[in-house]
Amino acid sequence: MAAPTYQDLAAQKRAHQIALIPPEWRLDSVPSVESTPNALAYLREILSPAELALTEETNITVQLHKLSSGELSSLELTRAFAKRAALAHQLTTCCTEIFFEEAFKVARGLDEHLARTGKTVGPLHGLPISIKDLFTVKGVDTSIGWVGLTKNPATTDKSVARTLRRLGAVLYVKTNLPQSMMMSDSYNHVFGQCVHPLNRKLISGGSSGGEASLIAARGSVLGIGTDLGGSIRIPASLCGLYGLSPSQGRHPYERGSPQQDIVRSVAGPMSCSLATIERYMEALPFASPWEVDQHTAPIPWRTNLACPGAKRLKIAFVVDDGVVRVQPPIARAMREVIHALKAAGHEVIEWDASTHNHAYALWEKAIFSDGGEACRKKTEMTGEPLIEGMLVGSPENTLTTSETHQLNADKYAYESFYLDRWVSSGIDGLIMPNTPWVGYKPWTWIKSHAYVGYTSIWNLLGYAALAVPVTTVSRTMDLPDEEWLGDVPKNASERFNIEQYDVDLVEGMPVGLQVVGGRFGEEKCIAVAKAIEHAMKRRNVTRASLLT
Amino acid sequence: MAAPTYQDLAAQKRAHQIALIPPEWRLDSVPSVESTPNALAYLREILSPAELALTEETNITVQLHKLSSGELSSLELTRAFAKRAALAHQLTTCCTEIFFEEAFKVARGLDEHLARTGKTVGPLHGLPISIKDLFTVKGVDTSIGWVGLTKNPATTDKSVARTLRRLGAVLYVKTNLPQSMMMSDSYNHVFGQCVHPLNRKLISGGSSGGEASLIAARGSVLGIGTDLGGSIRIPASLCGLYGLSPSQGRHPYERGSPQQDIVRSVAGPMSCSLATIERYMEALPFASPWEVDQHTAPIPWRTNLACPGAKRLKIAFVVDDGVVRVQPPIARAMREVIHALKAAGHEVIEWDASTHNHAYALWEKAIFSDGGEACRKKTEMTGEPLIEGMLVGSPENTLTTSETHQLNADKYAYESFYLDRWVSSGIDGLIMPNTPWVGYKPWTWIKSHAYVGYTSIWNLLGYAALAVPVTTVSRTMDLPDEEWLGDVPKNASERFNIEQYDVDLVEGMPVGLQVVGGRFGEEKCIAVAKAIEHAMKRRNVTRASLLT
Repeated sequence: MAAPTYQDLAAQKRAHQIALIPPEWRLDSVPSVESTPNALAYLREILSPAELALTEETNITVQLHKLSSGELSSLELTRAFAKRAALAHQLTTCCTEIFFEEAFKVARGLDEHLARTGKTVGPLHGLPISIKDLFTVKGVDTSIGWVGLTKNPATTDKSVARTLRRLGAVLYVKTNLPQSMMMSDSYNHVFGQCVHPLNRKLISGGSSGGEASLIAARGSVLGIGTDLGGSIRIPASLCGLYGLSPSQGRHPYERGSPQQDIVRSVAGPMSCSLATIERYMEALPFASPWEVDQHTAPIPWRTNLACPGAKRLKIAFVVDDGVVRVQPPIARAMREVIHALKAAGHEVIEWDASTHNHAYALWEKAIFSDGGEACRKKTEMTGEPLIEGMLVGSPENTLTTSETHQLNADKYAYESFYLDRWVSSGIDGLIMPNTPWVGYKPWTWIKSHAYVGYTSIWNLLGYAALAVPVTTVSRTMDLPDEEWLGDVPKNASERFNIEQYDVDLVEGMPVGLQVVGGRFGEEKCIAVAKAIEHAMKRRNVTRASLLT
Repeated sequence: MAAPTYQDLAAQKRAHQIALIPPEWRLDSVPSVESTPNALAYLREILSPAELALTEETNITVQLHKLSSGELSSLELTRAFAKRAALAHQLTTCCTEIFFEEAFKVARGLDEHLARTGKTVGPLHGLPISIKDLFTVKGVDTSIGWVGLTKNPATTDKSVARTLRRLGAVLYVKTNLPQSMMMSDSYNHVFGQCVHPLNRKLISGGSSGGEASLIAARGSVLGIGTDLGGSIRIPASLCGLYGLSPSQGRHPYERGSPQQDIVRSVAGPMSCSLATIERYMEALPFASPWEVDQHTAPIPWRTNLACPGAKRLKIAFVVDDGVVRVQPPIARAMREVIHALKAAGHEVIEWDASTHNHAYALWEKAIFSDGGEACRKKTEMTGEPLIEGMLVGSPENTLTTSETHQLNADKYAYESFYLDRWVSSGIDGLIMPNTPWVGYKPWTWIKSHAYVGYTSIWNLLGYAALAVPVTTVSRTMDLPDEEWLGDVPKNASERFNIEQYDVDLVEGMPVGLQVVGGRFGEEKCIAVAKAIEHAMKRRNVTRASLLT
């Protein structure tokens, strides 16, 4: 008997996955992308008012209050999100592991605990939270989109699941991601292509693309993604979410497989609501995550830094980092936010990004340092092919130990240079794009000579950075102008980015910006995001009053 | 004209060094080691009562109070320590860079500031602090004991000096260390052999051996050393000091030259007084060191953890880590402390150290990973020879990037294993030896097949660990017994350690232990050390009353 091919194994896994959705939650037929591009709108049609009431609330503070007072049971809320996640998955392929039965058991246990003791287990008592596939949860695979890692359920929870359980959360689903996690399009051979819930013709980004897609479809109110070069912020930006990429050491993570340790991936929250991000980060220290993950520091949440009140902030901005110019909707979003912040009385200054290309070179060296070996080993397990065009090294990129040590020194020098600049500038935060592009069809990104320098610099430096939704693409406002069309591309990435921009393709899609809060500046990110929200609301009110 | 040899260059540097000592502070003739083995006793003879009063106080809280109230000028205190340091140096070779004139200028400036504004610059206003040579201070070399790095004064302060100045400290001297910093005997070709101030026939340890020697001679009340495998704790232990090796991320540091980043060196305080260590660590966050060094986390000093009050502590102990058995005085010190802690009502449990040899293997791999390249490059600058026997890699130890990535994974697995054990045990701290030996003559250590596993494991794990002085070697109590003499050595390091023990050589020398406080457990170290101090005092009082 021939050994099963990687396609056989993947098909088995997907069949197993769909079988975990209760029959009553399976769609009789999945509507076509052409007939039903907008999965969110479709879900809003087919769900009951009660289910919508439970799942459309995006601010967890509201739900947590109901959960802790016993007004709402965890089982009821978990069931509502499980159903919506199951439906969303059938439309967007956003999930990997589905473990509803286990989740209902946990939720029931939490409800009973509250009823019996009158006390919550933790600040997130009873709240369902979705997590990216790479976090290890007892009883299910951690395949991370590699066929060779399927059929190997974990025997224990690792750091992130442990932390979330200590907070009182209910885990119910893990979410899709790209092969290698080193691309912004969440496709892999195991689970297939994840797409955008607002327009299923487009991608939801990556690598936390399943998470972004699920949350944007309201199949989750709060999810945990990971970010090594933009993998939380890019999908969050595409899907109209907030997504926080914390400083290394602020949020637990889990390492394990052999890999470079020069630039470290981080885990962080993603949500439709800024208040949810803040509430989650505020709750996190309750779990003493430093007792769970060696690399998490015992830093309390500094509420005073996150709540600027009426303080006039000093905010720097970068519109173009000098490598790849951003598409018109992003440039407009930047202009609007800068204008609104100024109008609201904040000090807004331009930031010199002329060294950011150097940061990108350092980041790429680190990321490519194993010459792609880790990925090659994964493909060799089953013969599944490696997807071309991902940010994965080739043998010629392999660093010697001597070169690695030089890279450590170069990185340290750049960190020192940047920290001095940051501190001496006195800024509260920096706003800039997350990506130079606003939307792609599947399998486009890998042809883009991908440039993730707008986000990866903050991973290199270990600064907190938050994706913030700002506007949507508008056919009237974001037409390519002469300057855009006449621009001479400086490199292949920029050429692709200019040529690919098609306002008709991305009309109505979310456009986000990035707020950088500096080293351990998670609270500052929140403060600046609040200022942006406030300023943009003020601006819209002013505009509305001018129009009437 | 022939280029100068490394010996010529070193001689120039030393001549320059001695010229920086004011003539009135130069000894007419340096007494011989034979005639005057005890430099501390000698200093106490030649200094005036006023000078002694200023420099014999080991608790900086006393001095800081006088400094901030204006009762004592920084200039007066700095001058007293500068003189004592200059004299100590002539007896022990504990210093490298001497910059008294600059220090007096700074001290005068601080005095004037206080007089003018009535305010201190920071919590260590006016306090002279000595630092290890590797910290960069504007205007003087950072040669780190390499001839090729002399004659290259720094143009700016780096992180540690900047932080200390933000605290209000006065820098006046840098201290000696071994070539490569990877040995416990502070010799290098530039500055020569540093020795122990209580017995100049013996070494003061390393690599922060100059710092330990200077502080033990009371030429400094507080010094900053560094520790990658025991370099603060080992010399502190030999010299009867407290020496804190913090978790990475707790105290600023400065990197820069190309090197491995798998196990990171840390900086920490050394002092004769536990109260001084505590006061310094408590003051540190005032400087916002995370604004100075990228790798420092904004963790406040948690006074409640450092002050256990009457709490019954749970303390684990290791007497023998199963690799190299400790010499009789250390085993006795451990017994006495365990007994005293139990008598004081604390819970004391034995700790399984059977994995510590694995930790040593991982640590050594990381330390040797460059195959000795960084040191070779330093020697090639001037042709100075590399000292054989240091913990420096050879070309065959060079790791490939693939091996480095595997080491990252192995290290992470061990960290996770150990953290789980530590947290689930519920211990407040762990006590164990710092080294298996109590004293060596110069140039002995390099023949010892050096084993630093008692200390290096905490660098690998990133745990806070504090050297604590406990007793002194006693000819009557520490004679080798039959068990010691009959022991069959398990390896060359243990054989050397057994053969080398000579109670007559080390009679009267300090014996210290190590208190491990866990990850970010600096406060716990202090708490357990206080419990030890208290328990040992109680024990001595009880004993004294029994003897009378």
